[in-house]
Parts: sequence; structure tokens; C-alpha cells
Amino acid sequence: MLDNHKSSKTKLTELGEFKLIDHLTTNFNITQDSTKLGIGDDAAIIKHTHNTIISTDLLVEGVHFDLAYMPLKHLGYKAVVVNLSDIYAMNAEATQITVSIACSNRFTVEALEELYAGIQKACEIYNVDLVGGDTTTSIKGLQISVTAIGTAEDEKITKRSCAKDNDLLVVSGDLGAAYMGLQVLKRENEVFKVNPQNQPDLTPYSYIIERQLKPEARKDIPLLLEKLEVQPTSMIDISDGLSSEILHICKSSKVGANLFEDKLPLDPSVISTCEEFELDGTTVVLNGGEDYELLFTIKQDDFPKIKANPHLSVIGHITTADEGVHIITRANQKIPLKARGWSAIPEENG
Amino acid sequence: MLDNHKSSKTKLTELGEFKLIDHLTTNFNITQDSTKLGIGDDAAIIKHTHNTIISTDLLVEGVHFDLAYMPLKHLGYKAVVVNLSDIYAMNAEATQITVSIACSNRFTVEALEELYAGIQKACEIYNVDLVGGDTTTSIKGLQISVTAIGTAEDEKITKRSCAKDNDLLVVSGDLGAAYMGLQVLKRENEVFKVNPQNQPDLTPYSYIIERQLKPEARKDIPLLLEKLEVQPTSMIDISDGLSSEILHICKSSKVGANLFEDKLPLDPSVISTCEEFELDGTTVVLNGGEDYELLFTIKQDDFPKIKANPHLSVIGHITTADEGVHIITRANQKIPLKARGWSAIPEENG
Repeated sequence: MLDNHKSSKTKLTELGEFKLIDHLTTNFNITQDSTKLGIGDDAAIIKHTHNTIISTDLLVEGVHFDLAYMPLKHLGYKAVVVNLSDIYAMNAEATQITVSIACSNRFTVEALEELYAGIQKACEIYNVDLVGGDTTTSIKGLQISVTAIGTAEDEKITKRSCAKDNDLLVVSGDLGAAYMGLQVLKRENEVFKVNPQNQPDLTPYSYIIERQLKPEARKDIPLLLEKLEVQPTSMIDISDGLSSEILHICKSSKVGANLFEDKLPLDPSVISTCEEFELDGTTVVLNGGEDYELLFTIKQDDFPKIKANPHLSVIGHITTADEGVHIITRANQKIPLKARGWSAIPEENG
Repeated sequence: MLDNHKSSKTKLTELGEFKLIDHLTTNFNITQDSTKLGIGDDAAIIKHTHNTIISTDLLVEGVHFDLAYMPLKHLGYKAVVVNLSDIYAMNAEATQITVSIACSNRFTVEALEELYAGIQKACEIYNVDLVGGDTTTSIKGLQISVTAIGTAEDEKITKRSCAKDNDLLVVSGDLGAAYMGLQVLKRENEVFKVNPQNQPDLTPYSYIIERQLKPEARKDIPLLLEKLEVQPTSMIDISDGLSSEILHICKSSKVGANLFEDKLPLDPSVISTCEEFELDGTTVVLNGGEDYELLFTIKQDDFPKIKANPHLSVIGHITTADEGVHIITRANQKIPLKARGWSAIPEENG
């Protein structure tokens, strides 16, 4: 999957570092007024009228992605999108990114062209400028570091820390699909290892696989909330599973919460795939991760403004801290919400 | 060297990702007025009155550093400093950083504490705030991604691209020491492998070893130039060797240059160590790298202002592009300047 789609294979050393960066970024355009200087100097220059919002992530092959089922173009796209999601989670507008990659000599120039094609696609769709970065060698595998930059006015910015007792807990879109997409891809990869001739029909899984391989960040939600004249009291993006994100908001805001199992938004294909894999849909939503939806709180008074909006679901409400953080099950049981632990660190090979 | 200086060894998994970040960053203070929100939310919030300057680098174990002779505290310090150097190279002030690390289970909590102690030291000395980052696992080794953020007024910002014919080529400090420090460390590491009991006397090399292990960025130069009322016409930091940096300025500014071998500033200990290693000092300066001094151009009219300043050396002058880029040797020979190539990509193990 790395480079079997093209016949030409150019070694990275044939170009050299500076020519490689020039080559990979030649098709990128600057479209943001706030970008005063992009790639090609010691640093980029940005001029925002309001605040500058900055977030950064490091993605590691074998930990965050597996090239056995993640095409490089999708990976480039996803690496950008997951970082932009953090900017939107501040109720802000994303404007620029920087991208640094380290890769071993297993990668060809053509492979990196694919990766950068995905990065460029994300830049176009989300209207952000690539303004800097670094291309270097690694001893093993591929590492991608993305810094996302955005802007927002003081009164729009939404932190995790300002949820208040009685606020409503709201989520965009639906949850659990990315995790179930990964389960299908892992299963198909095992089948492929046993029988490479097998041509699986993945049509029933197309939505959940797309949510895993090509997630989208909710650029539209800050705009929608502005249009609805709703200023959220707190906000976070759902990268690690709903449970851990609710606990982040509650810890930062020093509040508790009640989450209602029967309010959780699941796509029908997530429900059917959970049945097929004998997994509990609620557990998948709480612990699955990689949905990149936005979780936020609003004042009760704002409820009429968001009611019946197809993009938004009210899934619970904020309580005082001493009431704790619970999920109320369909059977009306009240169970304390726990964060998913940090995934175990793989053993180092040599 | 990783963790043999402490008896306690705590596995990373014992803390978990979020507690680990909290633990490592607990002693960091916010000191910049422009930092409106630091670590602990989806993104940091920065409010600069003027431009925001951004630069990013990815450092990879086995490519950019070797923990056999690089203590983790020094590595943390250096990772920050080399990024700040890019901000100063825009004639700007550094204000914030973000740091992301990926590390394998070979590293203990105590090892990362050492790394972050070095990062904190750099933040204190350079007066920058740590405002974000990411801690994750890697399959193999340690990767560090630093994004440096700064600010500067429009009229102060200095790009690579505005050097003009007849401008003077100026460099801060002295050159070649970091490269020769590395040669000494590599030699001592080979000796150590053969005889671990050997206690080498590194006193004669203390300056050049410090330049390699604990480089400093020239925060003082933008301030000095402001005081001297000199606005440089172009500027770059010397990370890859003088030769490649001069060629960058000439390419970006569409000019040529003459560099004078007898004007190159070398510390006496660099000259003596070059003799010991039978290396040519000029070659070391041109191709060695990691000096993190600033190279810049000024108008001839500004020469009286910088003349005899102990921090600055005039090493040549800018010409028209068609004259090319040359070094004039002590024997008065004119030799075309060539860039050092990209270092060969190591073979991937498995």
C-alpha cells in the first residue's frame, strides 16, 4: 500500500532535504490574509487581529496509525484534521498549520507525495495555509507532527473550564463509528494475511470505515453556534472517547455530570456492526475514541435555540462536583463514569 | 546515562498520559503577558500586539542526537534552544513554545523528568512559556517536536530574502566549535566502549563540548542590533554550517557573495582541536553545523555602528547574482561555495 500504485520509485536521498521540501510543498497556496510569510524562511509570520490559538500533536507509526490499512493520502488528511479539531474545540477558526515529518528510507519520494496530497486536500477543504515544517530522517517508521493555528475573538473563545451546574451537555454528530471502522479494517487485514485473493464487500461498512480513515473536523459547529447565537460555556473535541472528554470538562470546570445512555447518538451502521462484533454500543461510544465530534455545554436558556437541530444531541446535564460524574443507563441505573486508561506502551524492539 | 543516576525507576504506564503531562509540567510558570491560556485545554491562547512568528522542528533519536553522550537534561535544553534560534533569526523576540514527545517504554518517568528539567531551564533562561504539547508512545526511541512562537513589529522583522548588492555579511560569535565538540564526544564514546574505567581529562575541550551539548541561541543579537540602531537586511541562523546558510540567503535574495577565509571567527580551542584531529578549520566552519550563531547582512553605511563589536565579525560582502557565491582563500584563490548535502538516510532496521 506504501507505493505499489506507482511504478516510479525515487529514493529520498536523490532529492536532498531542501529540494524535497520545495518539491512536496510546490502546489500549496497561501489563501489566508493573516499569513504574511509562509514556507521558506527560518519561521513563518502570521498577523491575527484577535487571539492566536495553537495546538500540536505528534502521530507515530505503529501507535497512532498502521500503514497496512491506512493509505498515505488518507493519513496526511487525517493528521491535519485531528489537529484542526482542537482549534474548533476552542470555538475558533483554524487558519494555518505547520507539518514536520520524520521518515525512514523505506519511504520513497512518491510515497511522501501521496502523504502531502492528503495534507493539501485538507488545507483546501478546511481553508488553512501550510506555513512551515521540517522534513527529516528517522531510524524506523514515520512520525508526523502537526501544529494547528487559529484565531478567535475574546468573547467567542470556549475553554474546558467554564461549565456550570445545570448546563446542558451537547454533542455534535454521532459517536462510535471510527472505532467500529477500525475493528472492521483490522479484521479484513487479518483475512488478507491469510488469503490475499479475498475481495471483501465492505459496502455495508462504508460509513464507519470512512469515519476511521477520513475523519472530518467540525469546522461547521462554531459557525452554526454563532448563527444560532449560542455561546457555549465549555467545549472539547472527542478524540479519546466520550467518557474521558466528559471527565476532562468536569475536572477543569470543577463540576459533576449526568449522562443519559438512551440519548447517545449512534448511527444505525454502528449499532449493526456492534451486534456483529458482539460489542456493547455504549461501551464503544464511551471508550472508543477518534470521533472528532465536539462535546460542549450550554446554558439551559439556550435549549430552544438548538432543539431539534439535526447536528446536535443533548446527552445529559452538568451537576455540582459533589454529585460526581455518572451515566444513567436505559435500565435507570446510575453508574460512575470512568476514563479509559492510557493504552499500554508497546514493547520496544531492540 | 538514561537513568542510572537515580535509584527509583517508575514505568510510564504507572502514571498514564494525562497524569504524566501534569506531572512533568507542574513546575512550569507562565511569565509572558501574551500567554492568555497555557497547558490543559484543547489549545493554547496567545495574544500578540504585533506579528506572531512560528517555527517548528522535529528531533529524532539516532539521527539528531545520541543518548550515549547526550544527557537527557541537556537534550531538553538543546531541543528548545535550537527552535528559539529560528525565532531570533527573524530578528524577533521568542515568547512561547510547545513540546511534543514520543518515547518508547525504555524511558522511565525519572528519565522524562530529566528531559523536562532541561526544557524548563531553557524556558527560564530565554523567558519563554511552555503552553502546550503532547506526550505519546513510540515503537522505538525518542522523538521531540518543538514549536517556537515569537513576536516582532513589522519594521523589525528580517527575512532571508532582502540582502542587496554591496551589503556586508556579518556573523555573531565564533564558528565550528559544536562540530569539533561532537568529534571529541564520539572519540571518547569509542574509548569508553573499549575501556569503561578510563577517566578522560576533557578540560581542554570544555568550550567545544559545551557548544555541542548545551548550545545557546543568540537572544542578545536582536537586542544588540536594536541598541546599535542597525536594521539587518537579511538574517538566518547557522544550524547546518556557514556554507549552506550563505547559499540560502543568496538564493532567497537573488544575490551572490564573497566570503573571506581569513575573516572567519574561530575559537583557539577549535583551531587546536582541528589540528589534533587533522581537520581543516575552514571546512569545519563551512560544513560543520550546529553553531546556532546568527548570519546577517547590513548596509555598508551601518558598518561604523558594528565595527569592533566583540560579538560580531564582518566575514564578506554581497555581490550581484551573476558573480556567484565564492570563498576567497588566504592564498587569494576564489573558490565556488557549495552546500553540504543532506546527510545520508540510515538504513531501517526491520
